[in-house]
Order: sequence, then C-alpha cells, then structure tokens
Amino acid sequence: MIKITLPDGSVREFEKGTSALGIAKSISEGLARKVLAANINGQVWDATRPINDDASLKLLTWDDNDGKNTFWHSSAHLMAEAVESMFPGVKFWVGPPVENGFYYDMDLGDKKMSEEDLAALEKKMNELARKNSEYLRKEMPKADAVKYFTDKGDEYKLDLLSNLNDGEITFYSQGNFTDLCRGPHIPNTSFIKAIKLTSIAGAYWKGDEKNKMLTRLYGVTFPSQKQLDEHLQMLEEAKKRDHRKLGKELGIYTMDDDVGQGLIMWMPNGTVIIEELEKLAKETEQAAGYKRVVTPHIAKESMYITSGHLPYYADSMYPPMEMEGEKYYLKSMNCPHHHKIYAAEPKSYRDLPYRIAEYGTVYRYEQSGELFGLMRVRCLHMNDAHIYCTKEQFNDEFRAVNDMYLKYFKIFGIEKYVMRLSLHSPDKLGIKYVNEPELWKETETMVRNVLTESNIPFVEVKDEAAFYGPKIDVQIYSAIGREFTLATNQVDFSQGRSFKLEYIGQDNKAETPLIIHRAPLGTHERFIGFLLEQYAGKFPLWLAPVQVKVLPISDKFLDYAKAVSDKLKKSDIRSEVDDRHEKIGKKIRDTELLKVPYMLVVGEKEMNENKVSVRIQGKGDAGVRSVDEFIADAVSQIKERKAE
Amino acid sequence: MIKITLPDGSVREFEKGTSALGIAKSISEGLARKVLAANINGQVWDATRPINDDASLKLLTWDDNDGKNTFWHSSAHLMAEAVESMFPGVKFWVGPPVENGFYYDMDLGDKKMSEEDLAALEKKMNELARKNSEYLRKEMPKADAVKYFTDKGDEYKLDLLSNLNDGEITFYSQGNFTDLCRGPHIPNTSFIKAIKLTSIAGAYWKGDEKNKMLTRLYGVTFPSQKQLDEHLQMLEEAKKRDHRKLGKELGIYTMDDDVGQGLIMWMPNGTVIIEELEKLAKETEQAAGYKRVVTPHIAKESMYITSGHLPYYADSMYPPMEMEGEKYYLKSMNCPHHHKIYAAEPKSYRDLPYRIAEYGTVYRYEQSGELFGLMRVRCLHMNDAHIYCTKEQFNDEFRAVNDMYLKYFKIFGIEKYVMRLSLHSPDKLGIKYVNEPELWKETETMVRNVLTESNIPFVEVKDEAAFYGPKIDVQIYSAIGREFTLATNQVDFSQGRSFKLEYIGQDNKAETPLIIHRAPLGTHERFIGFLLEQYAGKFPLWLAPVQVKVLPISDKFLDYAKAVSDKLKKSDIRSEVDDRHEKIGKKIRDTELLKVPYMLVVGEKEMNENKVSVRIQGKGDAGVRSVDEFIADAVSQIKERKAE
Repeated sequence: MIKITLPDGSVREFEKGTSALGIAKSISEGLARKVLAANINGQVWDATRPINDDASLKLLTWDDNDGKNTFWHSSAHLMAEAVESMFPGVKFWVGPPVENGFYYDMDLGDKKMSEEDLAALEKKMNELARKNSEYLRKEMPKADAVKYFTDKGDEYKLDLLSNLNDGEITFYSQGNFTDLCRGPHIPNTSFIKAIKLTSIAGAYWKGDEKNKMLTRLYGVTFPSQKQLDEHLQMLEEAKKRDHRKLGKELGIYTMDDDVGQGLIMWMPNGTVIIEELEKLAKETEQAAGYKRVVTPHIAKESMYITSGHLPYYADSMYPPMEMEGEKYYLKSMNCPHHHKIYAAEPKSYRDLPYRIAEYGTVYRYEQSGELFGLMRVRCLHMNDAHIYCTKEQFNDEFRAVNDMYLKYFKIFGIEKYVMRLSLHSPDKLGIKYVNEPELWKETETMVRNVLTESNIPFVEVKDEAAFYGPKIDVQIYSAIGREFTLATNQVDFSQGRSFKLEYIGQDNKAETPLIIHRAPLGTHERFIGFLLEQYAGKFPLWLAPVQVKVLPISDKFLDYAKAVSDKLKKSDIRSEVDDRHEKIGKKIRDTELLKVPYMLVVGEKEMNENKVSVRIQGKGDAGVRSVDEFIADAVSQIKERKAE
Repeated sequence: MIKITLPDGSVREFEKGTSALGIAKSISEGLARKVLAANINGQVWDATRPINDDASLKLLTWDDNDGKNTFWHSSAHLMAEAVESMFPGVKFWVGPPVENGFYYDMDLGDKKMSEEDLAALEKKMNELARKNSEYLRKEMPKADAVKYFTDKGDEYKLDLLSNLNDGEITFYSQGNFTDLCRGPHIPNTSFIKAIKLTSIAGAYWKGDEKNKMLTRLYGVTFPSQKQLDEHLQMLEEAKKRDHRKLGKELGIYTMDDDVGQGLIMWMPNGTVIIEELEKLAKETEQAAGYKRVVTPHIAKESMYITSGHLPYYADSMYPPMEMEGEKYYLKSMNCPHHHKIYAAEPKSYRDLPYRIAEYGTVYRYEQSGELFGLMRVRCLHMNDAHIYCTKEQFNDEFRAVNDMYLKYFKIFGIEKYVMRLSLHSPDKLGIKYVNEPELWKETETMVRNVLTESNIPFVEVKDEAAFYGPKIDVQIYSAIGREFTLATNQVDFSQGRSFKLEYIGQDNKAETPLIIHRAPLGTHERFIGFLLEQYAGKFPLWLAPVQVKVLPISDKFLDYAKAVSDKLKKSDIRSEVDDRHEKIGKKIRDTELLKVPYMLVVGEKEMNENKVSVRIQGKGDAGVRSVDEFIADAVSQIKERKAE
C-alpha cells in the first residue's frame, strides 16, 4: 500500500501502482471524468501513470493551468496525427501549449498547407478524437529512440534527442501517431470535444532566420462546444476592441517609418488621456507625500556601470552615442538619475522616506519581430517613482504602494488581477542577479510578509526578479478576460550601495537606504492599449479626449452651439461644435462613431430656453436640461472620475 | 564745401576736411564733449577723422552701442599702454570690446601677471588717461607695417598682417603705445574717467587648445565714476542673484559628472517651477485653441535628412546611435515629429490653423567650454508648438503669438524687451539657408508687416535667420538690467514642402501650409535661470516651490501646525511644517533664507482661536488671521498669478 496526501492534508492509502485517475474514481466518477492530469510531489504527471510510492497528489482539471496546458499539448498531438494522415511524410519539430491553445511546427517537405486545408484537418481531428484513443507513455532507451527516428529519417527529432540523456526519454502514442515527448498527456482523446484550427504561419527552425522556414499550425480546443463558442466570441470582441484599430479610428496614436519602429507618437486625443493619467498620478502621489523631479534621457557609461545596467541589462539598451571621448546611453530606466538626485543633498533619517516621482520616458531595445502596437514598444512613458526608506519604514511604504495599485484598479474598473512575487534563482547569482545571497533571502521574506499581512492574493515565480532585488509583477484582466502584464513593484537592496547613497541615522551613523521602484500604471503605452480594450474605446467622461459635442440642428443655431461650447470649456469640459453642413441625424451617427460621451443637440426650443437636449453615447436621448445643470453634473462626474 | 546730411534729414555745408567733432562743436560745445565716434555713411569712424566728401552723419555717444564699443576699444589700447610700461617686451594679440567692457590677449613671455598687479595697472591707466593723449590714426603701406613688427619681433601682429591687404592697414597711437588697428577710436584718453580691471584669465591663441596659452586681461571703463559705481553695484547684485548660487541654495537643480556636462537634473523645488510654467502654458494655449501631443526623443536619419537638420544643423546634434543598420538621432528640435503628426491624418482647410504644442525635450551639442549653468546646456526642456496655417491666416496667427509673448512678459514683470527680426543673408543661400530667394523675400516682408502693424518695436539683423525661414528673437532684460536672449518666433516656408504636408483648399486643390515655430518662454533651463535673477530667488507665491511654512512656537503646537498645513494642502497650497526642536527665532531666520513667501507662526493663542500669525517673506509680521481667511487670500493670489 502507498500513502497519498491530498491537498486538504488528509492521507489515504491505496494499492501500489494505483493511478491518479484510479484515485479520482475512488472519490467520484464525476470527478474522474474531469481529471486531465495530476500533480505528484510537485511534478505534473499523466493521470493514468501508476504511482508506486507515497506521494502528495493534486488532481488537475481544466480550471488548473497545468491541466489546461496538458489538454492543449495532447490536442497538439491529435492535430499532428491528423496532419500525418493527410500529409504523409511530414516531419514534426515541437508542439507546445501556448496562451490560448497550442501549435505544432512542422516540415511539410515540398507540400504546402493552406487555409483551405483547415476545415478538412478539423474534421479529421474530430473523427480521431471520437475514437477514444488512449495516450500511451513508454520509456525508451536512447539507442532505441535514435534507431526509431533514424529509420524514419526524421532529423528534427534526432536533433531533440541529441540533447537528452538515456533514462529520461519517453515516447507517447495515440491512435496511429507516435512522438518523442516528455509528456504528460490527458487519459484519452475523447476529452477533446471542440476543435478550432486558428491559423497557419511560418517559423524559422529554432527561431533562427538562417535556418529553414517551418510551417506553424495554430489551434485551440475545449472540453465542450459551449466553451469554444464563448472563446471565439471573446476573440471576435477582442478584434473589435483591438487597440491598434481603435487607436487609429479615435486618433490616439500614430507611428512612422522615418521616426522608427516601436516609437509611438501620441496624437492630440491620446495626449489628453496621457495627461489625465498623469494628473491622476500627480494628485495621488502628492497626497501620499511624493515630490516630483525631471531628469535627462541620457547619461554617461560610468553611470550605467555603477548602476549595474551595463553588465546585467545591456541587451535591452540602445547602443551608445560617442562624443568627446565619452559614451552616452539613452536611459532604459529612471532609477540611476533619481539616485543622483537623492545624492545631490545630504540626507538624515528625518528626510526619509524620500519619495520622488517623474513622468519619465525610457528607451529599451526590443527586437523588431517582438514589437506590437502599444503593447511592445521601444519608447516607454511612465509615471515612475522611487522611494528611499529605512528597513523599519519598508513594510509601511511597500504596503502603501500596493494599496495605491488597488486604488487605481478600482478607478479603472479592473476587477480581476493577480500579483506575482518574482524571486531570484540561486544558480544565476552573479550572472543574472546581483551576487548577494543573504540580502536576496532577507528582502524576499520582507516582500512575502507584506503581501501575506495585507491579504493580497499572490503566486510565487522563480527566476523572474529584477537584477537588483525581488519584485511583484501585477497581471490584470480586461473586461473581456484577456490578461495584461501591467506593472511592477520592486525592492532594491543593491543600487543604494552601488551609488553610495546614505542617510545619517538617529545614532549619527551613515546607513544605506532601501529603495522601492514602482510604476503602478505601468507604461502609458501598454496601459492605454489596455484601456482601449477595457472600454472598447468608450472612455469614461473624465478620460474621454472629447467629452461633449454640441450639435446644432441647423446653421441657424451655430452661434448658440458655440456659446454653449465656450461655456463648457470655461468649466474645463473638453467640448467641440459639429459645425458641418450636415443633417442632425448624420451628425449624431458620426459622433457616436467617435465615442464622444455626451452629445448636446440644440435647436429653436433649446436656444430660446437656454437649454440643451442631452444624448448619452450608446444610450440615446436623456432629456432636455439647462446648460448650467448639465455643466454642474458633468463637472462633478469628471471630478469624481466616475466609471461611466 | 561738402554737404552733410544729419539724422533728422537736414543738410548742412561744411569745409572739406571738417571732422565729425568739428561739426559737433559747430552745433554745441556740450555735445562735442560727449562725441566718442561718428557713423559716416553707415561706417563707424574716428570723430576726429577728416570728412572729404558729401556724407550722411550720425554722432555717436555713450548711448549708442557703437559709441560705447569705441570707448571700450580705446580703453583696451590704454590698458595695453599701461601693461607695456609695467611689463616691457609684452606682445599683444587682439583687444576687442565685449558685452560689459573689453579685454586684451597678450603674451607676457616668461613673466606672470597676478591679481595683485591690477591695482597698479589701474593706477597707471588713470595716470595715462589724465595726459589727454590723442588717438592718432595713420595709414600704413603693408611693407612698412611688416617691417615695423618684424623689427619689433612681434609674431602676433605679423600673423594679423598676413591676412590684410595693402591699402587697408592702419596704425593707431596714443601716448607711447602704437598698435596695428582698424579703429575707430575716441578723440583722446581724457574721456576715460573711471577704470576697473576686472579679471585675468587664460585663453589659447586663436581659441585653439593646441596653441600657446595667452593671458587675457579684462576691464571695464566709463565716462564717469558714478557710472562705474552703478555698474559695480549691478555686478554685486548679479552675484547675489547668480542663478548657479541660488539654484543650489534653493534646491532648484543639480548636475553630475556621471550624467554628463550640460545635462540638468531638476530637483523637487525646480520641478515645481517647471510644472507651474507648463501649467500656465497649457492654460494659455488651451484658451488659444492649441492641442497637445507627445513624441519620442529620437528619430531615424532619414527624418533629419528630409527636415534639413542634417545638412544645415548637424554640428549642433548629438552623434547617432547605430542599430539594426539604421542611424537614430536624438532630436535637436521638435518640429519634424510634429510634422509627422500633422501628416498622420488628412487635413482640409477646415482643420487649419492646426496648432500643436508639446512639453518637448531636445538635445543639442554645445562645446564643453560654452556650457554655463542653466544658460548654456545640452538638454533643453521647452513649451514648444507649431502652427500650420494658410497664407491668409498667417498675419493673425503670427500676431497672436507675439501677443502671447507680451502677455507672459506682463506676468513675469518683464518691463524691458527688444524684438530682433533675424533675416537671411543672400550670399549664404544653399549653405546656411534654404535656397529659395523669392520665398525669403516674401516671408520676411510678411513678418516685418506684422511687427509694424502691431506697433511692436524691433530691430532688423542680417544673417541670423533659421535655415528654413526668418525669425524673431526676443531679448529681455532682468530687474537688474542684464540682457537675456529668451525665445524665438519663426516662420517656415520650407519644411512643409520637404515633408509633403498638405491640406485640401476650398477649391479642392492640395496646398502646402505655412508653419510657425514658437516657444514664448524659451527653454525652461534659461527661463528659470532668468527668473532666479529676476526675483533674486524670491519667487511670487504662485511659483514658489514651498508657498507656506507653518512654524510651531514649541512642540506643544506641532499637532495644530500639522492640521493647519494639511488644511492648506487640501486647497492645493504647497505647505510644510518646521518640526525641528528649534527656537522660533531660528525657525523664522532659516525660513527667510529659503525665501518661503509666507510663514505662519502658531502658538497657544493661535491654536485656541483657530488662527495663524502671518509673516511675509522679507517684510515681517502681517498680523493674526483666521486659517480660512488666510487660505482664501492665498488661493486667490495663486490663481491670479500675482507678481507679489
């Protein structure tokens, strides 16, 4: 008998060789039908694999990321089986699960796959799925594996094998398909109820453009047709909310070949949003005791050697400018400049916490292929700040920053978020991380404690810290459920010492401050991209580039319309008049398309009574009101930053 | 007889060979005593030089720049005479008049001049001046001149001679001193009544660091002791108001070797001022129909070839960054990016004037030796904007910009200013200026007309235009009378075509807009430097980094002080509490030094009555007031941007 510890801590005994699926069945048949894989002692296993020793066990279903990934990886194998049946002689490279589904890279020889083949492939996959084929795991001696793929003439799998050791090689088979694969897989193909092949793309072998171009086939599958339908609907909605499409339609941003890839130029409408975000940040930070600074966008090489950016972060920086025998770099982060401001005047413990914020612009090198709309850019604007504090002040300061994040989430209607505590990896000390094992432990514990004490839900991830200390990465989800990496909150025990930053403590001794790096709204680029999707371009009043459009029914009322608009402007409401010679119906339709929150229609009656007919974007007529009444209402909505 | 036309247009006849001084004497002896030189047919002459032909004449006195420069140049010769008498064997290079006085560069051989020698030299100069020596002009054949200086062994003057042609060589002598000199000079040394030698510096021969270091001796002289006293007092005041000194004392800005020369970092107090200036600009521009944009700080080489910056302005740019086979440049102006924003959406005549403003940061290369505090820097922040308009709209738009300048001058108490209309130079078309002779004429006339129609006083200067069109340079004078070059207002007929910018006219044809480049506050760097001098660091309330300091008489009233300060902050008043354990006298003295406009002293009485004892910076006690009363008053002062 073996002892199995379940997630609730209870321990049950089973026959040696029982599988996770067997254990699930012993609990309930219904549960067993949902089990896709299992976490055994921290490793993900096939649910059907025999367990021979005492173990902790967590059954994995669709609701677990590891369950979902196993499902999608098995779907990639099913897709490969279908491809092999229709394209005999195809050779496969790798087929991993990805964010929304899976892909498989393949060499089709002299054959071509086109969009037209996808329906037939889907049909074949459905056929194969209905065969209930089991995914069978088989351990293989390396020699046998090499022989198998040599006989098959498959140079791709032989390449993979060359990096594997004897004893760690497994084959997986289902139906007529066999693959070199580490697994795990779902019990059988019948779990896969709904299938959609989404696209075909080219991908260089091993991502190297010097290598052969392989065919990459993308798909997504679900345990039910309903889930697939919902997913496709979400994609449809995401397409409508595509920040690149809305960004152009609403005059938010533009790019230009002569300026350079990944360099966003903010058009007047986008700049309104940037300035409103910055105003919010400024107000919030002023109330929280921050001061503001302005620093240049370049600095000399010596600064980035001191900061550690050049040894640890050089790949993400623009190349230097050489002048008067010196190398100048565009800043990729604001911190070193802020450290210099800290150092410019002597500090005592009475000056701490010293919090300085900047509307900072940094430049980072991203490969051309990685650039994507506002999401991946090379010039990043952000509301950045650094807090210099004592160890005793750290908990309060770090918690206050987290609270600031939550306050912002509320304002922007962000209901779902996850904080990821990114830790260092001890084997990369001195390579990717500053070589200070004790300080890493200490600060990671401090951050973990703050999160625990604040009851903030978080997950821990190894090997994703900044080079100077642990950090919290914040993932948020848009209204249609898409995930965005937003912002970070970082601890830094290293740069304070590198820059010889000091404060004189109460005991008159010089101490090094701890530094918190934070940018709760992330970069303006990514955040506005998120907001375009979140609001589908229908910004709440306080953020809307044009808040009110006054529509005269005919030219006769143009002067009154202008008078109304001027009055609105005097109350700091962003207002425009539609002075075109168009019918009122067209004016309304066009203004709807521009997603302006309020339309004020004015004609004879409105003019005589000093009133306006209010229309709300997407909702239509909201009655006649006096101009003053409308203004008072709008001003209060704007001031409160109401969601709608 | 010759006919002499006077500035008032009247014509008088004189004997041939009469000098300007003779003519002056014929008008009045008093006038003659003031004549330093004369403008004869547009050229500056010695007042004593015989006039042999009909001519137009303007007598030059201390009130004319040319008169003053002649006075100082003659003073340089007087100084040289004194130096030669005390340092026999000295060789002289050049001795021009400068902004406030004159200098002479000299090679003292193996001798050294020190600050201690200055008093003796001044004494000697006074002695020589009292001798009433005449400045005598003598035309010299080149061969004789070369022989003279060869015999003297003076390689410096021989070097000067090598660039002069026979027939244009003159010597000037006074007392025992003779110099190769183009002149002109004042009649005699007795005009020089007050003398101050100000400093000794080193200067490479011909400004080239590979050459020998010469000694540069600076001095300043005046026609009366009173004027010298006033000048020295102004210098003393300027020293107190030195923006570098105040900038450090008040925590306005800092620089750092690791960041780089000429790269200002704005400390929290300086950033408050930047943000207040930007807020003023934003409000003013919003009311004037500008929109705002945000653009990156770099662009590709192709953009700057199109804009003409690389051919015409390359020396002022930072060197490129080379990446992915492309060259990227830091922007030295915002215009090309703004043109790209203009071009991003199609425009019709209805969209013009299109006015876009940016809080822009540009980078310009200035030689290390030219850098000076906030006055000459390499990173420049500015409230920049570009106006795209039709020819018909030009006058109104250009005038509106000039009016905006005048509005700002009023706010900042700038009472004296001069506008300089900078024109192109026809012989530099295609080299320094875009080669479009007709467009130069046309736009120069347009600008001149606007200035004339607006009754704005201006002077015209040749060969100082931007490479793309004429401009107005604005010179302002600080409270202590020092001159600052502030801002420019430029016309651009060239870049619109280079960037293929268009709008569809009423006749449905594509037209190129005219562009106005403007930055009325100049750069934040220079303007804040000016303001530090203008206000001697005592900023008016709306600009003051800390507006109010609350001073509790003892710790017992600390809580009340904090409550008062919090209340002020809620009304957006920048307030701090002096919570140190110091006597109230010391708190007041320290706060005075920081030039905080208001101090609120609080003790028992104030706390019990919810009041504050108000002290005004530099003025002392202003009575007891209720907190609300004080707030209402301060808020209204801030809102109105009152000068004091």
